[in-house]
Amino acid sequence: MARINENYLKLRGAYLFPEIARRVQEYAESSPGAADRIIRCGIGDVTEPLPPAVIEAMHKAVDEMAVKETFRGYGPPTGYPFLREAIAKGDFTDWGLDITADEIFVSDGSKTDCGAVLDILGEGNRLGITDPVYPVYVDSNVMAGHTGEARDDGSYEGITYLPCTVDNDFVPDIPTEPLDLIYLCYPNNPTGGMITLDQLQAWVDYALRNKAIIVYDVAYQAFVREEGVPRSIYEAEGARRCAMEFHSFSKSGGFTGVRCGYTVCPKELTAATAGGKDVPLHGLWTRRWGTKSNSVGYVIQRATEALFSEQGAAQTRALVDNYLENARLLLEGCTAIGLTAYGGLNSPYVWVACPDGVTSWEMFDRMLKQADVVITPGVGFGTCGEGYFRISAFNTRENVLKVVERMKAIAAQPV
Amino acid sequence: MARINENYLKLRGAYLFPEIARRVQEYAESSPGAADRIIRCGIGDVTEPLPPAVIEAMHKAVDEMAVKETFRGYGPPTGYPFLREAIAKGDFTDWGLDITADEIFVSDGSKTDCGAVLDILGEGNRLGITDPVYPVYVDSNVMAGHTGEARDDGSYEGITYLPCTVDNDFVPDIPTEPLDLIYLCYPNNPTGGMITLDQLQAWVDYALRNKAIIVYDVAYQAFVREEGVPRSIYEAEGARRCAMEFHSFSKSGGFTGVRCGYTVCPKELTAATAGGKDVPLHGLWTRRWGTKSNSVGYVIQRATEALFSEQGAAQTRALVDNYLENARLLLEGCTAIGLTAYGGLNSPYVWVACPDGVTSWEMFDRMLKQADVVITPGVGFGTCGEGYFRISAFNTRENVLKVVERMKAIAAQPV
Repeated sequence: MARINENYLKLRGAYLFPEIARRVQEYAESSPGAADRIIRCGIGDVTEPLPPAVIEAMHKAVDEMAVKETFRGYGPPTGYPFLREAIAKGDFTDWGLDITADEIFVSDGSKTDCGAVLDILGEGNRLGITDPVYPVYVDSNVMAGHTGEARDDGSYEGITYLPCTVDNDFVPDIPTEPLDLIYLCYPNNPTGGMITLDQLQAWVDYALRNKAIIVYDVAYQAFVREEGVPRSIYEAEGARRCAMEFHSFSKSGGFTGVRCGYTVCPKELTAATAGGKDVPLHGLWTRRWGTKSNSVGYVIQRATEALFSEQGAAQTRALVDNYLENARLLLEGCTAIGLTAYGGLNSPYVWVACPDGVTSWEMFDRMLKQADVVITPGVGFGTCGEGYFRISAFNTRENVLKVVERMKAIAAQPV
Repeated sequence: MARINENYLKLRGAYLFPEIARRVQEYAESSPGAADRIIRCGIGDVTEPLPPAVIEAMHKAVDEMAVKETFRGYGPPTGYPFLREAIAKGDFTDWGLDITADEIFVSDGSKTDCGAVLDILGEGNRLGITDPVYPVYVDSNVMAGHTGEARDDGSYEGITYLPCTVDNDFVPDIPTEPLDLIYLCYPNNPTGGMITLDQLQAWVDYALRNKAIIVYDVAYQAFVREEGVPRSIYEAEGARRCAMEFHSFSKSGGFTGVRCGYTVCPKELTAATAGGKDVPLHGLWTRRWGTKSNSVGYVIQRATEALFSEQGAAQTRALVDNYLENARLLLEGCTAIGLTAYGGLNSPYVWVACPDGVTSWEMFDRMLKQADVVITPGVGFGTCGEGYFRISAFNTRENVLKVVERMKAIAAQPV
């Protein structure tokens, strides 16, 4: 009798974004005209078209695939050298960081990488996961059997939650107990918070002391504009021995519908066997990709390479500038109507405290039904997110201005 | 202290194709001029450019991504409805098979799917894997901890190997013991063998009796040209209750460098909890993709859709016809020099017995060094492949004719 992976049965409800989609659809179908009025600031999906340099590179690569002499079949399982080299240069050595092309593993995105990394890590790792957090870190661990059962509040036994709150400026305190696998994300999703290099160094030191691994997610790296804040964990001393870094082109190049990202796995990074022998993860990770993937299509890899050209980089920066201006307008708009709001500076997300006594999902429903605006309820990212909501700046300027106006109108109404 | 997944340490040597690549590179570097002479008939990688209908669809989709009004961000995690519907029609309902669009799960290829399916299946499933076989079925199970240690011959404890030999015409006998998870692939890789509908029905009946699941891999479906042989396991009665089917566009549309495939997970398909409760896999599989993937890029999905248009289908058929003619020439060539060869009819692979007393890897080295031809040693696919080698018809006609000539020349030489 074939058996299922029963860990899946521990999962609570649907994954956050499908649940939002369900509620939005229900509302759109039940309220005449709503479908046309709704503005989506929930899921962090980009709205601007791909940069012209990317479009040009894709057309060129498609043409190469049309001719026998330039056609490409299977590529290397961890990405073409042309792309791994462009990434190593553009994202690391140009910034003075010591990462080589063969430490870059191209993938179809961070969501895939979050699940995949658990392939090479064993059972029994003590998990540290920030709260609130991108739900995929948690759910992928539940699926892999690395947690216990769900509690009533949606949290899971067997995870050490690391609160990211207003009180600690959205950077979790260094734990007093030893953890083995820690997820950090800066610029932070969902709070829009940022970490300082000193704070990051403290986490790296903690990981080195405990022989822990930090999965460092920099999906929003392109939004870092402040001087002196770290763009990469490899700015911290010793991080090559304790950290993998997860990168996405979704929010920089607008690649949510293109699908390309990468991980960094430095050669010094090890984890142990039960017998205490250190094993380099680089070999295991290489093997993982060689066996379970044929990497990303050639056209997509050329598209990604184009983000690192002079034109591509300038166009990407302009794209991100545009979303950052949206974020600034949303932050300003929230503050103007008396809401307390965070983020929105080195981040496309604004994290807003609900009015007193209003829950995240109540605020979700209120914003949906009174303003026809989709936001993400903070509690969907973890228990510490209760009482907050996230507004995404990934939208057109026109819509962002409408959102600000509609929020003003709600605020002016009696509740 | 972070811990690795120690199951990776059980893996024997490198994955087959990287090992071949290593040997070829070593030879190419050590033998002057070899790099230019080498013809690769090892890995089953296509050589012909993409069909014009695909190129046209990709250009069009790229242009859509360049304009705000038609730009697409995140798509549905299991594929766009336009593609799932095109597949359900083109590959199933047009052939009288009852599979619906929501039972189609689009992915970036079968290699990914082979690993992914183990996410939703539990531990303790008794594995039945054909021998010889596509190594990914075995390696992905080793990585997931579903096997014991490797034996000296490269096989693993805890797998029931199902021999596919000349004696059983490359269709394994129905086991006498109960198995829970069985991998079958027809047209067969690597032997090129085919199964009859009666034989397939016997396997489906076995699976239904034992509440087992069959993973049925039809990566080479497009090569089936004989009348009366099954293109899909769903031609067998009851298969919707016991089988997932794995499809690839790599070998039909020439998508090895594009990356798209799909799985079929019928709604009636269930597996059990330890407590004996049947759980539909469709929900688990949907959740798996929702949490761990954002599906395949929009341009790629439009490219795939184009394979199902009238023009795309005709162009794909012509592509496959060309490779089938290559296979026929290779089969004929092997036979002409006194080798015993199989396959090559409903398959791009010719499976050749080595001359008496010559091992697979000896034959690999001989073909490489005497003929500058890369083949795949049969033993790389499993112990039952010892004494055989696989020649792939995925090459240009010109190269195929050269391979035949060079094999003739070797055969004429004293060993």
